[in-house]
Amino acid sequence: MFTDYTPALKSDLSLRWQTVQKHMQAIGADAILVNSNLNQLYLTGRIFMGYTYLPAQGLPHFFVRRPNNLVGDQVHHIYKPEQIPQFLTQIGLPAPQHLLLEAAELSHQNWLRLSKLWDTPSDDASTLLRRCRAVKTPYEVQIMKLTGARHAAVIEQYVARYHPGMSDQEWTVEMIHQMLQAGSLGIFRVAGEDMECFMGTVLAGPNGGAVSPYDFALGGRGLHPSLPVGQSGTKLEPGTPIMVDLAANFYGYLTDCTRTFAIGQLPEAAYAAHQTAIDITKALMAAGVPGAHCEELYHLALEMADQAGLGDYFMGLEQKARFVGHGTGLVINELPVLGARSRDHLALNMCIALEPKFVLPGIGAVGIEDTCLVTQQGMISLTPAPQAIITL
Amino acid sequence: MFTDYTPALKSDLSLRWQTVQKHMQAIGADAILVNSNLNQLYLTGRIFMGYTYLPAQGLPHFFVRRPNNLVGDQVHHIYKPEQIPQFLTQIGLPAPQHLLLEAAELSHQNWLRLSKLWDTPSDDASTLLRRCRAVKTPYEVQIMKLTGARHAAVIEQYVARYHPGMSDQEWTVEMIHQMLQAGSLGIFRVAGEDMECFMGTVLAGPNGGAVSPYDFALGGRGLHPSLPVGQSGTKLEPGTPIMVDLAANFYGYLTDCTRTFAIGQLPEAAYAAHQTAIDITKALMAAGVPGAHCEELYHLALEMADQAGLGDYFMGLEQKARFVGHGTGLVINELPVLGARSRDHLALNMCIALEPKFVLPGIGAVGIEDTCLVTQQGMISLTPAPQAIITL
Repeated sequence: MFTDYTPALKSDLSLRWQTVQKHMQAIGADAILVNSNLNQLYLTGRIFMGYTYLPAQGLPHFFVRRPNNLVGDQVHHIYKPEQIPQFLTQIGLPAPQHLLLEAAELSHQNWLRLSKLWDTPSDDASTLLRRCRAVKTPYEVQIMKLTGARHAAVIEQYVARYHPGMSDQEWTVEMIHQMLQAGSLGIFRVAGEDMECFMGTVLAGPNGGAVSPYDFALGGRGLHPSLPVGQSGTKLEPGTPIMVDLAANFYGYLTDCTRTFAIGQLPEAAYAAHQTAIDITKALMAAGVPGAHCEELYHLALEMADQAGLGDYFMGLEQKARFVGHGTGLVINELPVLGARSRDHLALNMCIALEPKFVLPGIGAVGIEDTCLVTQQGMISLTPAPQAIITL
Repeated sequence: MFTDYTPALKSDLSLRWQTVQKHMQAIGADAILVNSNLNQLYLTGRIFMGYTYLPAQGLPHFFVRRPNNLVGDQVHHIYKPEQIPQFLTQIGLPAPQHLLLEAAELSHQNWLRLSKLWDTPSDDASTLLRRCRAVKTPYEVQIMKLTGARHAAVIEQYVARYHPGMSDQEWTVEMIHQMLQAGSLGIFRVAGEDMECFMGTVLAGPNGGAVSPYDFALGGRGLHPSLPVGQSGTKLEPGTPIMVDLAANFYGYLTDCTRTFAIGQLPEAAYAAHQTAIDITKALMAAGVPGAHCEELYHLALEMADQAGLGDYFMGLEQKARFVGHGTGLVINELPVLGARSRDHLALNMCIALEPKFVLPGIGAVGIEDTCLVTQQGMISLTPAPQAIITL
């Protein structure tokens, strides 16, 4: 482990290794070789260019290409991954017979290279690691709590930067400024090669229903075809809702939180739908105990939307998201998905972004999103900003 | 092609397809199936979730999964890639015998899925597409020129937001604010799964020599181990240089430009080294005609640094970058690399970021970076901000 780590981080990383090892043993894998920034961050607490080799028993080894000044226990400097097998042989570790590599994070060409290191077939490590990352360790829970609290504090500042006549993008730039001033690192990590976004989206009026290529809950037309998501440069008009969904990342972990603002008074239907979103969140938090079935939670949300006469507007209009929540952490879209056909169940210390949202024809998007922690008593919110529509 | 495109963009996209087809024919490939956001943007001028199928002759077909409202010629809506072969058969296209897929952009699991669409072996498309992207089309040259001009204009505003007592991060947040206010989309695309950055880096004083895991020219310690690059949160002190290297992206294409600032007076050695960087840029621009050997350009820079007695400080101290420039465009690190062991040659309409930089022990980083266009007469700068050290 790297020398400058606190005892708390060190022991938490040991927990993560043990969790991964338990999963490895269950499928008969004897080693995992991790290379992606995402999973390096999970297994080692930092980004470095290199590889982490975790056997099914015992301690991991860290093979560092860059930076050249990183030191610590089991830390070895290499210039190419082909040096790893020989090194492991030298220290008496057997060659892996059932190796796992990250099929979802590695490029095909990188997979090919790493799968040739040993004369053994390679299986996927990504799904296993994704499942491990879904359940936060005590250290990670603390980070999520701190991030959520700071996130909520920034949201309460947004109103101060709004002024009449702004475009959605002008106000977004001000809110991003506040988020960065508050200490956010800015970087928005997302799993899946199709997905990308710059910090989040702001959806004003009709743009709330604009469809996007990305698999986020709602879309937005975006400012340019090279990034077709979120705010579209339209002027903010009185009487329309503005849904602000910017992520926060202060320590490498993302919290997701959406609040809806309004310039002046909205049509009554907007307040009613927004209240339904608040009610759905409350119901999901109460039902969100360890063991709860993610698909059932989605159907609970769907039923509440239907009962309120809002089923047609739930999670989009023309192109609907088939989920009402998702895990969050090192990436914005961790497991589990609270959606149709999900076979996952909640577990203690999962962090779930609940985001019931409605797109009302001729009005726009309303609703909320909160990052919640699964406890024995149900979910608690980590992003405690007031949930009602905020009048500008 | 998508219906809302201008004639200029349409004819430029045709040029790109023809260029790619020429490369395909040269290696005997009869089809390319593109899925990454990066290459979709190159081949179609926009991001969508789906696939572009380009045969070695004739027009491409666009298979769209999302958004569901995208229409145009040869645009087909699908919900999974397995529908593509049947569709092509229906319209009378033969199954590919030598298919190219993006080995560097696709995850291994996605490659596996796409390589099973036809009963034929798949080769790499990434290198071929990267080579095509390196040479800009007329439309792309226009975008790079516009981006560079707007980038330079933002740089000239940075001074106005500095005030004594700031940390490097505080000033960075202000400069990012200016960049976004000027219309930058913010998103920083970079090729290679190990690489990441939030808009760029600001390196003050000793942090200019701090090494990083990423393969950028210089590093910086960063604010957190989850993003160990760039500004480190240290207070800006009189007498130290501050190297500002923020990218601009107004239309999907990135320009790269670095300027060095100083709080008050720097040691004389800093001005001398900075002047050497300006001289190296000038020499590289003059030598940078079509056909110039990229490795020789690197050695030219190296020799000039040596002759100035600055070889030990060129491109880093403890961990040196072995290049002095790189292509830029849809990603910040396009081909070619002006570095050791590069076999590439410059070509007309390549866009090259030249970045001779020095890290002076006890002082920090000085130097410049400009995005330049290769013309018959050598390179011309697309980022015409004054190059001298700017006193704060």
